[in-house]
Amino acid sequence: REAGLRACRQIGENLIVPGGVKIIDAHGRMVMPGGIDVHTRFQMPDRGMVSADDFYQGTRAALAGGSTMIIDHVVPEPGVSLLAAFNQWREWADSKSCCDYSLHVDITNWHQGMQEEMESLVKDHGVNSFLVYLAYKDVFQLSDSQMYEVFGVIRDLGAIAQVHAENGDIIAQEQCRILELGITGPEGHVLSRPEEVEAEAVNRSVTVANQTNCPLYITKVMSKSAADVIALARKKGAVVYGEPISASLGTDGTHYWSKNWAKAAAFITSPPLSPDPTTPDYLNSLLSCGDLQVTGSAHCTFHTSQRAVGKDNFTLIPEGTNGTEERLSLVWDKCVVTGKMDENQFVAVTSTNAAKIFNLYPRKGRVAVGSDADLVLWDPDVSRIISAKSHNVAVDYNIFEGIEVRGAPLVVISQGKIVLEEGDLHTTEGCGRYVSRKPFPDHVYKRIKARSRVSL
Amino acid sequence: REAGLRACRQIGENLIVPGGVKIIDAHGRMVMPGGIDVHTRFQMPDRGMVSADDFYQGTRAALAGGSTMIIDHVVPEPGVSLLAAFNQWREWADSKSCCDYSLHVDITNWHQGMQEEMESLVKDHGVNSFLVYLAYKDVFQLSDSQMYEVFGVIRDLGAIAQVHAENGDIIAQEQCRILELGITGPEGHVLSRPEEVEAEAVNRSVTVANQTNCPLYITKVMSKSAADVIALARKKGAVVYGEPISASLGTDGTHYWSKNWAKAAAFITSPPLSPDPTTPDYLNSLLSCGDLQVTGSAHCTFHTSQRAVGKDNFTLIPEGTNGTEERLSLVWDKCVVTGKMDENQFVAVTSTNAAKIFNLYPRKGRVAVGSDADLVLWDPDVSRIISAKSHNVAVDYNIFEGIEVRGAPLVVISQGKIVLEEGDLHTTEGCGRYVSRKPFPDHVYKRIKARSRVSL
Amino acid sequence: REAGLRACRQIGENLIVPGGVKIIDAHGRMVMPGGIDVHTRFQMPDRGMVSADDFYQGTRAALAGGSTMIIDHVVPEPGVSLLAAFNQWREWADSKSCCDYSLHVDITNWHQGMQEEMESLVKDHGVNSFLVYLAYKDVFQLSDSQMYEVFGVIRDLGAIAQVHAENGDIIAQEQCRILELGITGPEGHVLSRPEEVEAEAVNRSVTVANQTNCPLYITKVMSKSAADVIALARKKGAVVYGEPISASLGTDGTHYWSKNWAKAAAFITSPPLSPDPTTPDYLNSLLSCGDLQVTGSAHCTFHTSQRAVGKDNFTLIPEGTNGTEERLSLVWDKCVVTGKMDENQFVAVTSTNAAKIFNLYPRKGRVAVGSDADLVLWDPDVSRIISAKSHNVAVDYNIFEGIEVRGAPLVVISQGKIVLEEGDLHTTEGCGRYVSRKPFPDHVYKRIKARSRVSL
Amino acid sequence: REAGLRACRQIGENLIVPGGVKIIDAHGRMVMPGGIDVHTRFQMPDRGMVSADDFYQGTRAALAGGSTMIIDHVVPEPGVSLLAAFNQWREWADSKSCCDYSLHVDITNWHQGMQEEMESLVKDHGVNSFLVYLAYKDVFQLSDSQMYEVFGVIRDLGAIAQVHAENGDIIAQEQCRILELGITGPEGHVLSRPEEVEAEAVNRSVTVANQTNCPLYITKVMSKSAADVIALARKKGAVVYGEPISASLGTDGTHYWSKNWAKAAAFITSPPLSPDPTTPDYLNSLLSCGDLQVTGSAHCTFHTSQRAVGKDNFTLIPEGTNGTEERLSLVWDKCVVTGKMDENQFVAVTSTNAAKIFNLYPRKGRVAVGSDADLVLWDPDVSRIISAKSHNVAVDYNIFEGIEVRGAPLVVISQGKIVLEEGDLHTTEGCGRYVSRKPFPDHVYKRIKARSRVSL
Repeated sequence: REAGLRACRQIGENLIVPGGVKIIDAHGRMVMPGGIDVHTRFQMPDRGMVSADDFYQGTRAALAGGSTMIIDHVVPEPGVSLLAAFNQWREWADSKSCCDYSLHVDITNWHQGMQEEMESLVKDHGVNSFLVYLAYKDVFQLSDSQMYEVFGVIRDLGAIAQVHAENGDIIAQEQCRILELGITGPEGHVLSRPEEVEAEAVNRSVTVANQTNCPLYITKVMSKSAADVIALARKKGAVVYGEPISASLGTDGTHYWSKNWAKAAAFITSPPLSPDPTTPDYLNSLLSCGDLQVTGSAHCTFHTSQRAVGKDNFTLIPEGTNGTEERLSLVWDKCVVTGKMDENQFVAVTSTNAAKIFNLYPRKGRVAVGSDADLVLWDPDVSRIISAKSHNVAVDYNIFEGIEVRGAPLVVISQGKIVLEEGDLHTTEGCGRYVSRKPFPDHVYKRIKARSRVSL
Repeated sequence: REAGLRACRQIGENLIVPGGVKIIDAHGRMVMPGGIDVHTRFQMPDRGMVSADDFYQGTRAALAGGSTMIIDHVVPEPGVSLLAAFNQWREWADSKSCCDYSLHVDITNWHQGMQEEMESLVKDHGVNSFLVYLAYKDVFQLSDSQMYEVFGVIRDLGAIAQVHAENGDIIAQEQCRILELGITGPEGHVLSRPEEVEAEAVNRSVTVANQTNCPLYITKVMSKSAADVIALARKKGAVVYGEPISASLGTDGTHYWSKNWAKAAAFITSPPLSPDPTTPDYLNSLLSCGDLQVTGSAHCTFHTSQRAVGKDNFTLIPEGTNGTEERLSLVWDKCVVTGKMDENQFVAVTSTNAAKIFNLYPRKGRVAVGSDADLVLWDPDVSRIISAKSHNVAVDYNIFEGIEVRGAPLVVISQGKIVLEEGDLHTTEGCGRYVSRKPFPDHVYKRIKARSRVSL
Repeated sequence: REAGLRACRQIGENLIVPGGVKIIDAHGRMVMPGGIDVHTRFQMPDRGMVSADDFYQGTRAALAGGSTMIIDHVVPEPGVSLLAAFNQWREWADSKSCCDYSLHVDITNWHQGMQEEMESLVKDHGVNSFLVYLAYKDVFQLSDSQMYEVFGVIRDLGAIAQVHAENGDIIAQEQCRILELGITGPEGHVLSRPEEVEAEAVNRSVTVANQTNCPLYITKVMSKSAADVIALARKKGAVVYGEPISASLGTDGTHYWSKNWAKAAAFITSPPLSPDPTTPDYLNSLLSCGDLQVTGSAHCTFHTSQRAVGKDNFTLIPEGTNGTEERLSLVWDKCVVTGKMDENQFVAVTSTNAAKIFNLYPRKGRVAVGSDADLVLWDPDVSRIISAKSHNVAVDYNIFEGIEVRGAPLVVISQGKIVLEEGDLHTTEGCGRYVSRKPFPDHVYKRIKARSRVSL
Repeated sequence: REAGLRACRQIGENLIVPGGVKIIDAHGRMVMPGGIDVHTRFQMPDRGMVSADDFYQGTRAALAGGSTMIIDHVVPEPGVSLLAAFNQWREWADSKSCCDYSLHVDITNWHQGMQEEMESLVKDHGVNSFLVYLAYKDVFQLSDSQMYEVFGVIRDLGAIAQVHAENGDIIAQEQCRILELGITGPEGHVLSRPEEVEAEAVNRSVTVANQTNCPLYITKVMSKSAADVIALARKKGAVVYGEPISASLGTDGTHYWSKNWAKAAAFITSPPLSPDPTTPDYLNSLLSCGDLQVTGSAHCTFHTSQRAVGKDNFTLIPEGTNGTEERLSLVWDKCVVTGKMDENQFVAVTSTNAAKIFNLYPRKGRVAVGSDADLVLWDPDVSRIISAKSHNVAVDYNIFEGIEVRGAPLVVISQGKIVLEEGDLHTTEGCGRYVSRKPFPDHVYKRIKARSRVSL
């Protein structure tokens, strides 16, 4: 804790009037606000299993990679009270989380009666973002009419609509067709979810968001065509944000055809990674030019032994990839080192933009007196090879295995306390605080309000 | 009839080996194959009414404008047998039609049992095209799963999937919202159906068609963004065709705000005309460069007295616009006169492409010995002003009122008989023959079959 | 001056740690950094004339509109020493300017010997931007080879390459052709400079800048297609910036056909305003989504009596439009009021981005202790009608005559002194200071340096 | 000859009224018009050398691959009379050509006096196409002003403007830079000619063609971005055609880095092949959807011993690739087999479109009584591996070595005579006739004339 205070005083001395995205050069290293991993799914229940990394292991890894805050997803069983689910997640996270956290709440089914619970979550529990699913037919999937209604509620509450964008109707049909063809391995996953199916759902949700004048946030942008839809919508004036993830920025979907089943299965996530190997470079470019704004990890891992439940049927393989630890290094390596973006943009897409969209700014996402002492001392020159042997999560496979990345955190300070130093983690289970987020973030709602005044 | 035979012999002499799209210059006039109006809805039942122009008046007007064949849409009441509806339409058309005709069959609801009827229509009744609706929620609208299934059936039968592309879920919600705002006039129609809602549905149906490897045909392309989706899909290799109509090529949706209710109501059609006045020029450009391929009229008219049922509620106004008589002149004026396309392309988009897609070629769509003697002698230099006072349909309003167009048919020959000469129509009620269309048209299915061999 | 100090103290109290683009809400008004008009051409010599507004009138008008700094262009006669011209402009501006200013230097011809003068300007005189012309054949125009060489020099010096982007070869030919057709009026100006000719030159300069790894800044973005080229280049990773101006954001080129010659002539500028009336909305959208970054006025005015020299030949009409006074209000009205951008983006595109690109930040472009006390108290609610009768410049015509805009400065503070209050200007001739700009601005050169390390 | 007559009679029997692009299925084989290789450079002089394949070897290979006509380029030494050069090429071709041929004339420098020679070539010698170079600075390159003037002359003569599209100014600078970096091998060729440099020149020539209302034909479309420029221009209404070649459709530019110098050098051509390996698929898609229209080979070959003159300096390596023999099979394999296009489109892009653009239709490009008996019996099922060991040209390297292609000519008939049968060539040196081409081809000039009537 002393370290934290010291760090803050030093900042005060060096930077008389620090700005939100201002970077300090310290002998080639930079002090920057801790990353915000805007999308995690730690210890997530899935059909009787729980994902490999819980809030302890997950947040430790986040810190190890330079993220000092995570926002996890509450996934209520359809029919279960949103509040009950929210409280369950709070309990899990409070007891284990090593860094500050917040929670998105997923709307896994819909009837008008749920409006009240959403209102309570926003007003009493600091939730300002809800995710709807356009995939997972007959499980989580909402219809377009339902999406329209939910978006109306979200807008009235001043929250952000998040969308898992894939066309579940098509996927369900394609899964049957692919299985009938006798294809049961991991490649069936991506064959039944071609990238048009992602782009289609992005386009549809953009259309509904525009009609309802509701801010939209697409989680897990995995393909060029999905990203293109977002970019075009923004050019036409839509209030929409796109979140590529560690996996889509750092690797690709050619691995689904790996002869190593464990490896192929480790890449299973939805929307899937694109088999087009030029995708990561494209997404990194769009992230750099501002067409995409935020990066998350969508970290949700399962051991090979857990994935094995889908050994004979790819539709049963639990979904999700690692990436909370690798996120900042991947973005640095692929965007800053290559000259696609500068250090300020790096901070923006790994931390500040998320803080602004989700109304955490200026408490988070900024190096400043008065802001939380969540800081990273970044070493741009260090280079390392990612491997399951050395990563800080429990899961037994790392999808970035063998990839060399430049740039890594040298020191990480969370809640004013040094948690990473000289390669060693000094984390405290359960010290992470729940961070409330108020509705109507200026960054998002100034424009929404202006639009509501000028349009019908 | 003699005239027709004579015409054919002359053709034989001038053109030793005429091609499908070859134009003869005859002292500044051109002989060309009669137009095919690929989309009409004559004497269409709609909520207890019947549209103003029946098969007699409709086909007379078609002939007057240079079209010697029409393809009408059979619209079964949901739940009613497709065959029964088909036979009803045959009866209506056989007794009144003045030119050859064929019939698309609309799939207004869906269950697997309908597959047999579709098969019978294809194999026994010469139908090779079926239309599904993505709009008209709770009336005609199919879900994405249903669209997927229907497309699979259509592909197996070797037919063409047509789509009325608008998102009915969004429209239903927007109609409520607009009415609640107190907007009840015709402008409410277009306000509740913004062009994104059309483009969205086009994009969605393209996605499903690509997955099912089913050829797709979008009826009534009304907006720039819908046309853009089709153009992009074609560039990526999709087998998809787009049909702009007389209305979208010749006028725009600014008229929905006309203070003359009768006028505003006359423009009511779905998808609506775009309020962006640069739309017609854009659609004519895309028609000219090949991004769109076919033109129809979607002729479906209602008297002002009929439209008046929606005087206090725009959602009740029966839908459709005139255009079967004006189609060829509009395309000539806006595309050929301006140098966007040449005469051969004109014949392609008004006749030949339709004949190829719907397997009428070379019987229709070609000037040749052996082809039907459906011919037009076209005068490129004549100019006239469109008006309800002079048009050949029954309806009391013409949406192109006052527009001057260059180019018109001088002589029209149908079934080898002169039906238009010196401005006079010589038509015979009921002489129009039903034209069977075989499945698996080469123009469409050569590529579909190749794709099925190389993809999964 | 007291007012300024007071203002700064107040800021200190309200905002403990203000950020560069942070806006204070003061009873519905906002304190923001003074605008930077990044492109002016005050008292510009042109073929024996001098433009109507000199540095006194020009900077007064800038201040009246909320801009507290301008950057003017030095235009050396080809063959004249850059330094001599620079000193001449300094002299003019120092004696008359009412606000701080800086100077771009235009490279109006090119030989290798000029490299030394450029170096001196950068190292000794605080110039970090040079403009080359691709138009004005046989006067200012450089060839592609020359552009390549100049860009190489600019990059080595750490400066910004600016380009006046029009294809002068085509224009020269088209001017002859149009004059030969007997067209001598102002409409001939735009007929001889169609927007493709602008977009072509933008595309060419982007290509050369990419090859030389030189940062590029396009002045006066006037058309959709030019803006599209910039947007696409940025998406592909180019370090390029686009500057739409008051005129292109606020009005269009339909006025060149005005029967009022004085009016039509007042719109003469190059590249010309686009006759497509949907252009301003498009440019404002691209400015809002980040595809364009900076706004200037390109203020360069001539009295009708001066323009009259081209009464019988549009090529002789001196070029330029007003806009330094209207810039902020136009952007507010068209972008913020409509919900295209929020207040922070408004400050970015009117002030901060320019400060960062031209290395004036954080002295300019920020509200902060330590920054210059150049401040604006902005009233978002006031509405006024622009007119030559009330504007603060000398020229007798205003191209925005009769346009109503919402949003205006209530108080303007320059150099810590209130210069606008209750509608009254209190300016001091000659008090404006020349502001040096250092080379290698981080905002631009961090990426340029990274690119030079990874590419050949 | 008898075979030819027989073939024609059979055609008459099977197809009562055959169309220009109609395909006959003969037990799975198809009769189609012989291909037209619209771009060859046989026995081309280059800096003291002559290319490896002369008109005998070149046309033999063309016939072996299913092309029964070639159009070669006359390349006058700058300063030499166009007519003299034309006559020289006639002499060479007449004595050696085994199939019919025609000649484009390249405008390798420009002064107004050349207009007369161009007129003579058009009116007296059957030339209706001229190519200008935007590359080869200080050798062949024209300025934009010169291009403007030449296009005006071409349009007045009713001919087609062809452009070799690369920015020669940039290339000259980049060549110096690359050589200075010590890069002397074949990879320097593509490094000094990045694809933006091609796309830039395409865009520039489209702009000039639009201004002059001159039809434009881009030879050798090698990159995605160049093709995109053409597609966009066509969508906006430009009369422009694009010619991808065997090399760009069939392979890519990754080979420039081959450690086998002879191999790398064999790929040297300008514009270069793109190092982006997804380019061929993209170009084949655009060819299929109609955005590109014509295919040539740009066959111009040099033995490794000839290329060796550039062993230490890539700028000295003589340029050109093989492809006249492989063209049809490559297009069949990559477009028809994959379902991108059908057989009719195959005939269009390998033969008919070229015949129409260059006014050879209906003599060439059509299977019909009265057309030349230049026919191909195509076997869609045969598969073979391309190799220098088996090809029919003299050059010692084949850039498609080892590539397997499906589809090949079974029988080729030229001038009514069987020249390929059962794998054996029966060609006659010098029997090829020069084919005159009249100006003002309807396919091109109908639109040009309409445009000239409606625009200024």
